[in-house]
Amino acid sequence: MSAYQTIRARLAVRSFKPDPVPDGVVDKILRAGRWAPSSRNSQPWHMIVVRDRRTLAELASLTPSGGFIADAPLAIAVAMDGARRAEFDAGRLIENMVLAAWDEGVGTCMVGAFDGAKVKALLGIPESMELVTVMPYGYPTEEAATKTKLRKPLAQIAHLERFGRSWEG
Amino acid sequence: MSAYQTIRARLAVRSFKPDPVPDGVVDKILRAGRWAPSSRNSQPWHMIVVRDRRTLAELASLTPSGGFIADAPLAIAVAMDGARRAEFDAGRLIENMVLAAWDEGVGTCMVGAFDGAKVKALLGIPESMELVTVMPYGYPTEEAATKTKLRKPLAQIAHLERFGRSWEG
Repeated sequence: MSAYQTIRARLAVRSFKPDPVPDGVVDKILRAGRWAPSSRNSQPWHMIVVRDRRTLAELASLTPSGGFIADAPLAIAVAMDGARRAEFDAGRLIENMVLAAWDEGVGTCMVGAFDGAKVKALLGIPESMELVTVMPYGYPTEEAATKTKLRKPLAQIAHLERFGRSWEG
Repeated sequence: MSAYQTIRARLAVRSFKPDPVPDGVVDKILRAGRWAPSSRNSQPWHMIVVRDRRTLAELASLTPSGGFIADAPLAIAVAMDGARRAEFDAGRLIENMVLAAWDEGVGTCMVGAFDGAKVKALLGIPESMELVTVMPYGYPTEEAATKTKLRKPLAQIAHLERFGRSWEG
């Protein structure tokens, strides 16, 4: 699949088969993050791979919206270290990881809310760093792999030369 | 190229050939953005395509670090509208656009600093919206297409189960 095809096809996945994600695939996801652009190439990020079942269950208990982490074979935490634009750079890092994962048949889903202090303590992340997310990864169940992706029409969000003059494409 | 190969190969490009970027390619870049994930699928973004030479020159004059916009055949401004996580979602949107562009042979580069009020006035972007960036797009010059991409070793940024225990891959 080309990058565009992957971008087009990718779905948010919240239910996973129990099959483990092999080291080689995890490595590719991490490397895709590593190649992301960042402000002044500062690469202000850390990725923590979690596969220990007890840790996954504890992580699931530290988020109001990501309980499904407990049922995933893998999660990857992302923390930013002294970043000038932490959220923006994290978005670019994570999008790379998500797309590389999808290319390998692996799905994931952003989880936005955590008890950050407890997650950092659990994973040994220095207090000074900013926890962005812990995202579960795994092979999607049949149902999760066949959803429809809804988006606004392009004409509503794309403009030509000036805001309000619609891009017709 | 697969998504990973595109992610691996992509370079930041600051010097462009004069050749225009065809409508079909611009459309693909915009669509790649449109398919990005966002907080609660809110899609809180707008993209403004600029090809008018005078507008490009004015945009270049409104950034201390992006003067090269004046020499690009195309720029795309991104503004966020009432986003819960504007910077994070913008990072995901823009990474999709950047990768889809690269797949078509088109390069770009993040430009971080702008006189936002003046850019919004110039492009008619409502005051209430948040300007994230205006990025130039175009076909890279020979020199721009053959740079080396430097990154920290993976072992320095990837950890296994706990921060500080290096992922060996």
